[in-house]
Amino acid sequence: MSEPFDVVDVIRTKRDDARLSAAQIDWVVDAYTRGVVAEEQMSALAMAILLNGMHRGEVARWTQAMIASGERMDFSALSRPTADKHSTGGVGDKITLPLAPLVAVFGVAVPQLSGRGLGHTGGTLDKLESIPGWRAALTNAEMLAQLEDVGAVICAAGAGLAPADKKLYALRDVTGTVEAIPLIASSIMSKKIAEGTGSLVLDVKVGSGAFMKDLTQARELARTMVELGTDAGVRTVALLTDMATPLGRTAGNALEVREAVQVLDGGGPDDVVDLTVALAVEMLAAAGRPVDEAEVRAALADGRAMEVWRRMIAAQGGDPDAELPRARHTQDVLADRSGVVTRLDAYAVGVAAWRLGAGRSRREDPVQAGAGVEIHARPGEQVVAGQPLLTLHTDTPDRFGRALDALDGAWDVAPDGVPRRRPIVLDRIH
Amino acid sequence: MSEPFDVVDVIRTKRDDARLSAAQIDWVVDAYTRGVVAEEQMSALAMAILLNGMHRGEVARWTQAMIASGERMDFSALSRPTADKHSTGGVGDKITLPLAPLVAVFGVAVPQLSGRGLGHTGGTLDKLESIPGWRAALTNAEMLAQLEDVGAVICAAGAGLAPADKKLYALRDVTGTVEAIPLIASSIMSKKIAEGTGSLVLDVKVGSGAFMKDLTQARELARTMVELGTDAGVRTVALLTDMATPLGRTAGNALEVREAVQVLDGGGPDDVVDLTVALAVEMLAAAGRPVDEAEVRAALADGRAMEVWRRMIAAQGGDPDAELPRARHTQDVLADRSGVVTRLDAYAVGVAAWRLGAGRSRREDPVQAGAGVEIHARPGEQVVAGQPLLTLHTDTPDRFGRALDALDGAWDVAPDGVPRRRPIVLDRIH
Repeated sequence: MSEPFDVVDVIRTKRDDARLSAAQIDWVVDAYTRGVVAEEQMSALAMAILLNGMHRGEVARWTQAMIASGERMDFSALSRPTADKHSTGGVGDKITLPLAPLVAVFGVAVPQLSGRGLGHTGGTLDKLESIPGWRAALTNAEMLAQLEDVGAVICAAGAGLAPADKKLYALRDVTGTVEAIPLIASSIMSKKIAEGTGSLVLDVKVGSGAFMKDLTQARELARTMVELGTDAGVRTVALLTDMATPLGRTAGNALEVREAVQVLDGGGPDDVVDLTVALAVEMLAAAGRPVDEAEVRAALADGRAMEVWRRMIAAQGGDPDAELPRARHTQDVLADRSGVVTRLDAYAVGVAAWRLGAGRSRREDPVQAGAGVEIHARPGEQVVAGQPLLTLHTDTPDRFGRALDALDGAWDVAPDGVPRRRPIVLDRIH
Repeated sequence: MSEPFDVVDVIRTKRDDARLSAAQIDWVVDAYTRGVVAEEQMSALAMAILLNGMHRGEVARWTQAMIASGERMDFSALSRPTADKHSTGGVGDKITLPLAPLVAVFGVAVPQLSGRGLGHTGGTLDKLESIPGWRAALTNAEMLAQLEDVGAVICAAGAGLAPADKKLYALRDVTGTVEAIPLIASSIMSKKIAEGTGSLVLDVKVGSGAFMKDLTQARELARTMVELGTDAGVRTVALLTDMATPLGRTAGNALEVREAVQVLDGGGPDDVVDLTVALAVEMLAAAGRPVDEAEVRAALADGRAMEVWRRMIAAQGGDPDAELPRARHTQDVLADRSGVVTRLDAYAVGVAAWRLGAGRSRREDPVQAGAGVEIHARPGEQVVAGQPLLTLHTDTPDRFGRALDALDGAWDVAPDGVPRRRPIVLDRIH
């Protein structure tokens, strides 16, 4: 054996709550990628990391080792600065769709390498694939050309970025080790740093529909990621945003694209607009091209962002004027009393949309473009007894029953409640 | 999927420091044995158990589930009560060899299902296999017949007892999860309970040459095992015994058999005699046939134990009068000063014996019958500068160098020390 470490010693180090050395981290990530460290050994190490944590230097080194497992992209040849956004995932989170073209309006290039959905959270690529003709897969050359020409691209991340992360994520998913903050942070940041963006804004979701259910955990994750980005020379800022309730009025692929187009057309739900604008302001500032909020809002109102959107969709084969798919069946969920909605649970809506066909349980499952949940009254808004609170959409009506099960007890209505607008941004970490 | 549980939920339960239900435990052990729960999933669970622990009820159920994975033996047809002994493993621990025949002298049957050595601790079967002709493998029927006829048997445990434990132990060995007290305790006790003994005495070793380096850990392990045995209806007692220094004057296969025969002949090192007698007294009491210490010692002095030994060895094809193998090469390690030995590190001696060829690194490695370490002065005894402190034995003299490396700094000699006898039994848990 010519390996410089014994994996059992590495596991024991973290198990016994000591710090892993830089050399141990470099070796274990590389040896795992090569298959010398077995899956059962890495899962024991992942559980020890989850339970005993990692210090800042360990997470930084782990992230660097994951980056070193694959290729790095380079946007330095572009004539504009780059800014990227990453969301930790939520229900109804279509923000990337209006955000990327909006930021591009101001001369900052937005390379959004995105993923597909799994479980109750949707995936940006699944949403865009409801647009007839649109394709997610681009070569690196196509991506760079589109960034130079259009200024925004949303496409599939290539397999070449941080392959160690891909392998480790699949393992964590089946071993109860997903929820380790050092591993979540290094997984996200290794891909973002390898991708080569100059600046990054993180949208860390908090609440029932998010990975992080409470603000303390979310702050720790945000701080860890901001440190990792900063240490790697990427200007990084994080917003903590509310995911107790779904974003906007839709959860589902084509339903969300339609809502995103409303925002690009100067309309759309307040919370979606507010968050899109807040993230755009952060991205522009991080990229060294600060623009004030009023000017950013104006680019939504006057059609400049819509113009970039149309070019971005068309550049990837999509028809921005095409009719979006609609589900073949709908069913309304009626309010049982009049008043103000005080709660609409994001997780429940996410599970309902998933069960209606908008999401998948396994990576190879197909999704329905038209399926999902439409929300007629959000928290803070009024409903009248007997009128629709939600509309469920699906091509397969036998799914209504299990979707309704998921929604059981998912909202509250206060008869004497006062309508109010809820803040979407809860905190900022930089 | 018709499985009643999701393994990730089971892992999360223990990861989040909650109690596993009886149904979860039964299922996860069974599903792991069937291969439905994957190695990487069990290793994550094992790490969570190591770090978060288990309550008494969980360990008991885990042990029962391991027993249920295989066959159970039954000694109830025997005309005598049964008593078994288990040692957690140490250096120079040949106690089983004189102990089994000694206890049998007093009408209590001793079924010793034993193992082979791995790493720095030797295995009882490896030791006995240095006797020409002796064989470890017996059928259950042969074992029962020998118990009835001779009263003592030391043989290989069949693969049928607790196969879940066999699979789990191999996994723990490569994933840094060996040192989990609930898993150590359930591993040992599942085999002992499945074996069907009526009473059991545990020899829990404490010190550098043992698994448990400190008394607090050793007490916890002992208490956990005594509870498990008692809950399963096996009369169980534990002695905590010293393993800071090797037992007796030999570590190695034939070397230890020779020393055991000295004990059976009424001689041998004090500590080996004292521990053999102490364990015999406990086993006889636990089996309901109490005998006082003086009477037990008499059975070593007057040849009754030797007589049972000779019949026990012969019954398994061994020649009790055969010359035992000797290593082809020896090398003395000389004392560098005169005085009283105050320390001789058990772990160092164990590693030296292993490197000389007495032990194995992988299960399939052969062992040398004659290899090992002979100790001329134990802690508490006097040495004279220039005289041998140790003699190293091996068939492969190129191994002397690495054995000497292991022994570097392994002893202390105090010029003005006072010779004294050290107690071998440190505590008793019942």
